[in-house]
Amino acid sequence: MPLLTLTSDIGHQDFLVGAVKGQLLQANQQFSIVDITHKLSPFNYPQAAYVCRNAIKNFTPGTFHLVLVNLFDEKPEHMLLAEHNGHFIGCADNGLITMILEEVPQKVVALPLEKTQQKNTVYCTSIFAKAFNELQNGKKIEQVGDPSVSIHVKNPLKPLLGNNWIEGQIIFIDNFENVIVNITKDEFEEQRRGRSFKIVFKRDEVIDRISESYADVIEGEKLALFNSAGYLEIAINKGNAAGLLGLQGFSEKQQHSQYINSRMFYQTVRVYFD
Amino acid sequence: MPLLTLTSDIGHQDFLVGAVKGQLLQANQQFSIVDITHKLSPFNYPQAAYVCRNAIKNFTPGTFHLVLVNLFDEKPEHMLLAEHNGHFIGCADNGLITMILEEVPQKVVALPLEKTQQKNTVYCTSIFAKAFNELQNGKKIEQVGDPSVSIHVKNPLKPLLGNNWIEGQIIFIDNFENVIVNITKDEFEEQRRGRSFKIVFKRDEVIDRISESYADVIEGEKLALFNSAGYLEIAINKGNAAGLLGLQGFSEKQQHSQYINSRMFYQTVRVYFD
Amino acid sequence: MPLLTLTSDIGHQDFLVGAVKGQLLQANQQFSIVDITHKLSPFNYPQAAYVCRNAIKNFTPGTFHLVLVNLFDEKPEHMLLAEHNGHFIGCADNGLITMILEEVPQKVVALPLEKTQQKNTVYCTSIFAKAFNELQNGKKIEQVGDPSVSIHVKNPLKPLLGNNWIEGQIIFIDNFENVIVNITKDEFEEQRRGRSFKIVFKRDEVIDRISESYADVIEGEKLALFNSAGYLEIAINKGNAAGLLGLQGFSEKQQHSQYINSRMFYQTVRVYFD
Repeated sequence: MPLLTLTSDIGHQDFLVGAVKGQLLQANQQFSIVDITHKLSPFNYPQAAYVCRNAIKNFTPGTFHLVLVNLFDEKPEHMLLAEHNGHFIGCADNGLITMILEEVPQKVVALPLEKTQQKNTVYCTSIFAKAFNELQNGKKIEQVGDPSVSIHVKNPLKPLLGNNWIEGQIIFIDNFENVIVNITKDEFEEQRRGRSFKIVFKRDEVIDRISESYADVIEGEKLALFNSAGYLEIAINKGNAAGLLGLQGFSEKQQHSQYINSRMFYQTVRVYFD
Repeated sequence: MPLLTLTSDIGHQDFLVGAVKGQLLQANQQFSIVDITHKLSPFNYPQAAYVCRNAIKNFTPGTFHLVLVNLFDEKPEHMLLAEHNGHFIGCADNGLITMILEEVPQKVVALPLEKTQQKNTVYCTSIFAKAFNELQNGKKIEQVGDPSVSIHVKNPLKPLLGNNWIEGQIIFIDNFENVIVNITKDEFEEQRRGRSFKIVFKRDEVIDRISESYADVIEGEKLALFNSAGYLEIAINKGNAAGLLGLQGFSEKQQHSQYINSRMFYQTVRVYFD
Repeated sequence: MPLLTLTSDIGHQDFLVGAVKGQLLQANQQFSIVDITHKLSPFNYPQAAYVCRNAIKNFTPGTFHLVLVNLFDEKPEHMLLAEHNGHFIGCADNGLITMILEEVPQKVVALPLEKTQQKNTVYCTSIFAKAFNELQNGKKIEQVGDPSVSIHVKNPLKPLLGNNWIEGQIIFIDNFENVIVNITKDEFEEQRRGRSFKIVFKRDEVIDRISESYADVIEGEKLALFNSAGYLEIAINKGNAAGLLGLQGFSEKQQHSQYINSRMFYQTVRVYFD
């Protein structure tokens, strides 16, 4: 059965997640739909890109991925269907695709929307569903949409580099209030060049080693490690690091997630190399 | 594989969603279970009906739908199994089915509960699972339950109609704080009869046109459109309309959802026609 | 298609639930993944055990269950794979398995982790996925891991027993603020030996009968019943019992769930027998 992952900013209370699944299964009842999340931050592209990128890469090539976020930022005349390293990704032409992939997709086509149709989530899903089903039935991506499209490009949020430092942005705070910074292990090591380092955040908090695991330090102690996605994570063993960083606590974060997320976006962690 | 959608008010922390899925798959491991939502408002029938109705209609006829909400409002002696336009819907005999369908189901039977059994969610699910499996194996609905049942009827929440106005109730606030009013596009146009109109809410907020898309107005500006389900939606481009309407903000809505939802239920939006 | 249930403390916003599903489906695309919950309390073992135990027992033997909670409490050198009454359960060697089963598993093996690998959720999942797939392909559990492992044992949280009383702990507060106590119907009846009883909580709240259903009492009245899992539940018909018990309300519970859950853990309900 063809796998189809579903990622959105719809939340859990709406009829829309159900309607979207219904539309996809009407196109092809064989689709095996896998929920990734329906709680993407709609107005925080770096966070949405982080979540999508790191979920998608754990699936096998040939998987379909539908990413329904910020579909109506602009008045859309088309949706996008991209093929990249064997994955097929459907999303709006709002720049998110280049942030997810961190490059321009190998192939991308426009899926035109009918001029007379109202542009809503269910209608757009029906367009994606039809395209995915055509791919599943053996069509090439160039036969499914318009390859002449010039897509909207947004640059991925990358750390700033100095000669003896690298500065990352906090892109995600997880369920345990661990703080994820947009510095990957590869970027870190490349910039470090074997030197010793100090990870500095807040005003005067310093971590000077990378741990393997939370339990490498005693309970309540702060640590840094690289998470499952390979990103720098600042954590406290059995504690909530976001609080330590001076970010608002978990409860407030849930309440005002949109506002906080946009604030976090400007918060940074800097690593100095000796 | 037979599709079976699952909708409930159980929430996401309980063992019950898992137990319900286990019971369904014990009856027939071939069921392909599709989660709609587990965050229905248990004591807000208009909202639960809105969510169920608009999710279900995107599925193909022949789909099974299990709606577990307010099962034990009264001491139940039976559950209901309805067939309507080819869909099979299982739910409690609490009036929700006529609110979902906006009419009496074409066929409906009672699924009797054992007198000696404790009436809980898992037991009721096992009764639904057995009935769905019998339908799947080719039985007619009349062979699966008691067609002589006289069901509990609740009228759907409909807008009030005047000669030159229509007044709707706010039935849902979505993840972006867009405000959904129980006036469908068809009802609006039928009442409007080509006249110009003013949508009036709060005290003095007025919208006098229907937009195609959020981006039809500048950021921060209010607008009205018909949403994916065909209902009147009041929104602010990249903003939170519920706040503008004087409803409590998103954070408080999540906290006190039951209380707020019941308050919202009395909140209205009126459209005047010239 | 082989059933595989998924339970975790990852929450709904992270990429990790998607990554875990991707890893499982890479091992065997036939796995039919059933989400139980991703909102387990990571630091509340009795609650996590309650949820897992009562979800799992509704599935048919032969089902695979992956329980990703508190994987990195200690620096793990292996994960566990247990076989018990035909169910296969994968989890960390942190004591949770004996709390879920309320006994030592009939068979259990260690799944060693590579020393050179970073121990994260995605890597551990890949180890579980490989093991589940080997079982699915006909291997015995002894061929999949190391049966000589000596596992970490944690005792299930059991009620205290006196001659004329039994005292339970509040292990869960559900979506409706019903309060679940770790006294099963069997334990209650065995201790009761046909005597009359008083369920006492808070200071002076008393219930002296077990109801069949919420509607056995008038709206707003408190009651006790045994829930779908067979546990003592204290509820208010159409009300929120947790509030009555002096626990913080639903909103605060969601906000500070970790702190409250640990407080609830010490809160007790006592039944006196005459």
